[in-house]
Amino acid sequence: MKVEMYFCNIMGQGYYHFNPNLKQHTKLLKEAQYYVDGILSGDRYILSEAITIVESDEISKSHLAHEIIKKLQENDPLVNNIRIAVTGAPGVGKSTFIEAFGLYLIEANHKVAVLAIDPSSMMLKGSIMGDKTRMEKLSNNPAAYIRPSSNNSTMGGVSMGTKDAITLCEYAGYEYIIIETVGVGQSEVWASMMSDVTLLLIQPGAGDEIQGMKRGIVELVDIVIIHKADMPFADETEHAYKGVLSMFQPKFQNMTIKTAKVSSYDGIGFHKIFHLINEYIATSKQTDYFTLNRKNQALFWFDIYVKEKIYQAILKKEEVAKAISLYRSLIENGDIKAASNWRNIEKIIES
Amino acid sequence: MKVEMYFCNIMGQGYYHFNPNLKQHTKLLKEAQYYVDGILSGDRYILSEAITIVESDEISKSHLAHEIIKKLQENDPLVNNIRIAVTGAPGVGKSTFIEAFGLYLIEANHKVAVLAIDPSSMMLKGSIMGDKTRMEKLSNNPAAYIRPSSNNSTMGGVSMGTKDAITLCEYAGYEYIIIETVGVGQSEVWASMMSDVTLLLIQPGAGDEIQGMKRGIVELVDIVIIHKADMPFADETEHAYKGVLSMFQPKFQNMTIKTAKVSSYDGIGFHKIFHLINEYIATSKQTDYFTLNRKNQALFWFDIYVKEKIYQAILKKEEVAKAISLYRSLIENGDIKAASNWRNIEKIIES
Repeated sequence: MKVEMYFCNIMGQGYYHFNPNLKQHTKLLKEAQYYVDGILSGDRYILSEAITIVESDEISKSHLAHEIIKKLQENDPLVNNIRIAVTGAPGVGKSTFIEAFGLYLIEANHKVAVLAIDPSSMMLKGSIMGDKTRMEKLSNNPAAYIRPSSNNSTMGGVSMGTKDAITLCEYAGYEYIIIETVGVGQSEVWASMMSDVTLLLIQPGAGDEIQGMKRGIVELVDIVIIHKADMPFADETEHAYKGVLSMFQPKFQNMTIKTAKVSSYDGIGFHKIFHLINEYIATSKQTDYFTLNRKNQALFWFDIYVKEKIYQAILKKEEVAKAISLYRSLIENGDIKAASNWRNIEKIIES
Repeated sequence: MKVEMYFCNIMGQGYYHFNPNLKQHTKLLKEAQYYVDGILSGDRYILSEAITIVESDEISKSHLAHEIIKKLQENDPLVNNIRIAVTGAPGVGKSTFIEAFGLYLIEANHKVAVLAIDPSSMMLKGSIMGDKTRMEKLSNNPAAYIRPSSNNSTMGGVSMGTKDAITLCEYAGYEYIIIETVGVGQSEVWASMMSDVTLLLIQPGAGDEIQGMKRGIVELVDIVIIHKADMPFADETEHAYKGVLSMFQPKFQNMTIKTAKVSSYDGIGFHKIFHLINEYIATSKQTDYFTLNRKNQALFWFDIYVKEKIYQAILKKEEVAKAISLYRSLIENGDIKAASNWRNIEKIIES
């Protein structure tokens, strides 16, 4: 038995899901205004629904997502919202840190949203789904919104939806948006390219153990946090990383990479981190780096989005998709000549 | 008076340049076999002509370039050729180093080609054109081939031609291909993505002066060279950088970033560098990183090329080009809302 399903918009009353076997419509999506009102009133359930829509790849949802964002932007945005990327190797305790720091921010009368970057949805579904449990205290707090990672992996592993989800959370009144990475692949880069400030979590190690800093991380990091500061050698680790990171060019004038020791279990160090983040934001605003950075990020995502959309549109031509995948598999099988013969592909694209 | 010119291929005898006002053909380009024979016989003049063709953007030349490369690849390639990227801040003496090291390699009975990466052709034309004079001794040596930078800036600043130029030089018998960067923008990344080993040149500084290492360089570098080792504090600088770089994860098993002190004026240190490069290549071949790296590079350039070609093809649609440039200028002028409204563009691309 073949079950066909499709979506339709019945007389402007919203999007319905039609199952021809059951001969019935199920209301699935509502009009954009419904989500906009819900988000602006701070309804966490509607916010979740809306994020699912902006994260979706379906064309029907993509148009609705566009409408939601457009309508939201007719309102004044929060001007003091801060986007914080939290990066670090697996096992360093990012979730534990985010929960404890989130609760600290709520104590200080702020609203906090936690989003996750998902470079490879398949791989992460499991671990990220566990966030709700791991961040139990934070997720039960009415001033917090915790979003598990998106399953949208269209953009070659970049979850474009997360960028839109930030916008939605900000209009829902969350001042601090924490973007968690999974410490693999390019996730740090994507998180950093959505954030105003990037934290790197490391844990204390003795001597040689502190070696093995991920290459490429220096380019991103603004503040280094020595997590699990109750462990031995926290001071030595802080000192060593401070030395290494001070060797690199600052992102903007008067910026230096600061370090702080934190213990999420003892609740020690959060005041200093809060201070360092605010200080960093203040300095970056003074030097106009803050605005320039957000502008560059907007251009960065715009370019990625446009190129990816164009690429997808062309890949619909079967001939092009076949040629590209043929050449890629030749190269993967070690036929380096194929790489130089790529010029063949021009004719196919232009046809 | 309007002068029209076009190219045509007269009875398979090669490409001619026709000027209808003068009513005459000028032979400009020859058949692919001419260039292939010239390259394989090691003719530097014909090699130069062929590189100009592979660097060109013109469609007619692009097809000829494809033919040349295809015909070359019917021959066995050199198997022991090594591609070396030389990076470093402006003023550190990259050209001086390359000339001295190139002469050292020739002394050791090797043939050396020097290519340059040109991230912004306009900016560099001047300085790169000066290379011929600066590397006077090397360029006059029959065992060396020095190529000024390409003027092809189509690929968003990436000179795709350089990748093809490497292939041509290798078939011309040059075993060591040195790719020089200009120390700005993404040029280090591009050079590194074309090379088997990446050298970073730094100069001695006292204490605080050694600060300011470019962020992002750690990801690329394999060997650090303290150039101008005749200057004070060379030992201290080597020690400091060694410390910093040892903190990062190696690219492959058993790989460590080695350092060496060099003085191009005194001719000191080249033997060690030659040894370090050979050692690095040997280790990377043992661990299969060498082959994997070349394969990944081939895929990287293939993907860039295909996406760029597709992007260019779509940009020919005036409507799309207009929409993209409108949104980009809105974002550049600080209208961050424009970035979120990018979804509009979908409809235009799909039309």
